[in-house]
Amino acid sequence: MSEATTFRERLASAVERNQSLLCVGLDPVLGKLPASLRAPRDPARAIVEFNARVIEATADLVCAYKPNLGFYLAHGAAGAAALEETRRRIPAQIPVILDAKVGDLGHTSEAYAAGYYDEWGFDAVTVNPYLGEDSLEPFLRRPDKGVIILCKTSNPGSGDFQDLPVGDQGLPLSLTVAERVSDWSGRWPASLGLVVGATYSDQLAAVRQRCPDLPILLPGVGAQAGDLDAALRAGLDRSSAGLIVNASRSIIFAGSDLGEAWAEPVRAAAMALRESINSARGNHSPA
Amino acid sequence: MSEATTFRERLASAVERNQSLLCVGLDPVLGKLPASLRAPRDPARAIVEFNARVIEATADLVCAYKPNLGFYLAHGAAGAAALEETRRRIPAQIPVILDAKVGDLGHTSEAYAAGYYDEWGFDAVTVNPYLGEDSLEPFLRRPDKGVIILCKTSNPGSGDFQDLPVGDQGLPLSLTVAERVSDWSGRWPASLGLVVGATYSDQLAAVRQRCPDLPILLPGVGAQAGDLDAALRAGLDRSSAGLIVNASRSIIFAGSDLGEAWAEPVRAAAMALRESINSARGNHSPA
Repeated sequence: MSEATTFRERLASAVERNQSLLCVGLDPVLGKLPASLRAPRDPARAIVEFNARVIEATADLVCAYKPNLGFYLAHGAAGAAALEETRRRIPAQIPVILDAKVGDLGHTSEAYAAGYYDEWGFDAVTVNPYLGEDSLEPFLRRPDKGVIILCKTSNPGSGDFQDLPVGDQGLPLSLTVAERVSDWSGRWPASLGLVVGATYSDQLAAVRQRCPDLPILLPGVGAQAGDLDAALRAGLDRSSAGLIVNASRSIIFAGSDLGEAWAEPVRAAAMALRESINSARGNHSPA
Repeated sequence: MSEATTFRERLASAVERNQSLLCVGLDPVLGKLPASLRAPRDPARAIVEFNARVIEATADLVCAYKPNLGFYLAHGAAGAAALEETRRRIPAQIPVILDAKVGDLGHTSEAYAAGYYDEWGFDAVTVNPYLGEDSLEPFLRRPDKGVIILCKTSNPGSGDFQDLPVGDQGLPLSLTVAERVSDWSGRWPASLGLVVGATYSDQLAAVRQRCPDLPILLPGVGAQAGDLDAALRAGLDRSSAGLIVNASRSIIFAGSDLGEAWAEPVRAAAMALRESINSARGNHSPA
C-alpha cells in the first residue's frame, strides 16, 4: 500500500483486479464459528484463525474487507489483539475499512485518527456525522485515507432522527448530511464516502442523485435482506460502480454447520454474491 | 459493585460520599505525561502507571471516572490492554463511564453492550443517538447500567447538525434528541443521561428545562474553558445536583512539568475544581 495513492485509487484497483464490488464484513461471533474452531480454544485465537481462512477463501473475490470493531472489543483487550492480527493477515492490495462509526472531537478525534490509520493501519474508517465537520477534521485532512460517513443506516429505527425534516426545505436529516458531505468532499483531501442501507432504496436513489460521484458503502444486502437488485439500480453510479456492497454473516458463516470443509461454502457464497452484483451491474449499465 | 443497584444509585452514593460532582477524564496523551513516566518506557505501561497514580490522588474527590476509548486505541491492542488494567485499578465504589460515543446497530450493538458492560466492566457508556432508539436497545435494556446520550457537544462545529431546526416546531436537533431521551427514560430500565457541553450554557438551560430529572454529563469546563458558573447555574437540577462535571487535561496534566511529585498538583487541581463546583452549588441551591 503506497502512501502516494488515495483510498479511492486503491479501492478502484481492487474493484478492477477482482472484478468485484463485494466487501466482506469480518464480524466474528463465537457461537457461529465452525465447530472445529470453537471451545475449548482461546476466543481471540479462534477469531484470528477463522478470519484468516475467510480471507484466504475470498481475497480474489472482494474489493475490500470491513471488520466491525464491536465484534472484537466484545472480547476485551484480547479481542483488540485479534483485530490487530486480522489486519496483518489481509493482503496489501485489498483495502480495509474499519467499521468503528467513530464520532468524537478535538484531541480525542486526533487520537482516533492517528490510531486507526497509522497505528492499526486501516485504509478507511466509518464515522458518525452528529458532532459536525470540525470533529472529523483529523480524518478529513488525510489525503491517503478514506472517511465513510453514516448517512442513512439500514436498521428499522434509523428514521428516528435520520428521517426528520430539517431546515427551510424540510429535507430529511440524512439527505442534509449527504449534501454537506458532498460539499466537504470538494474541500478536504481525504477520499469521502457515505453509508446508506440497502434496505432503503428510495433514500439511496435520492442520495445518489445529490452525490453522483461519491462511493457509497451499502450494508444490508445479506442477512438483513434488502433487495439487492433494487439497491443496485438505485445506487450504482454512471460507470456502474461507486458502491461497496457489504455482506457479513451471509458469507462468513455460510459453512459453519459443516466440518473442516467450512471454507468452501464461504468462497461459494462470496462468488455467488459477486456474480449477482456483476450481473445487475451489466443490466443497469448506462448505454 | 452490586448488580442489584442501578448506575444512578451508584453515582448518587459516590456524589454523597465524596461530596463531589467532579468526574475526572482519564485521557492519557504520551507527550503530556510527567517526564519520569515517558520514554524509554513501553507506552501502555506508562499509561497504566500514570492512571494508577491519578486515581490514587483523586479517588476521594470524584463522583466518577471517564476514560475516553480514543486515547487507548491510539496505541493499538496494547492500549486496549492498558484500558483494561486501568479499569481494574479504579476502586469499586467509584462508577466508571466509558466515553466511547458508540452508535451501531443490531448484532453489533449487542456485541458492544456485552463487551463494554460485562467483559470490560464499565458502569456506563456514552452513545451517539444518530442511529435511533432501536440501535441502542442492548444498552437501554440493562437495569444495572448507565447510558449517556450525546445531545449538544462542546466543540465549535457541534451546530452543523445539532442546531438544525427540526420539524414543524423548528426545535433544534439537540433538543429533539433531549425530548426523545426523556421519553426513553420512562420506557427503558437503564439509567439514562445526556451529554451537553459546558460551552453552551443557553442550550444547557433549555435541556435542563425539558429534562428536569436526567443526569447531564458536562464536558468542557477545564481545558475547553467553558464558563463553569454559568454552566452550573444552567444545568444543576432542583436538588443542586444532576451534573457530572468532567475535566480531563486541566486535572491530570496539572503536574506534568514537575518531577516525581507530579501527583500533588493533580490532587490540588481536582480539589480546587470540586470546591468551585460545590461553592456554586451552594449559591444556586433553591431556597
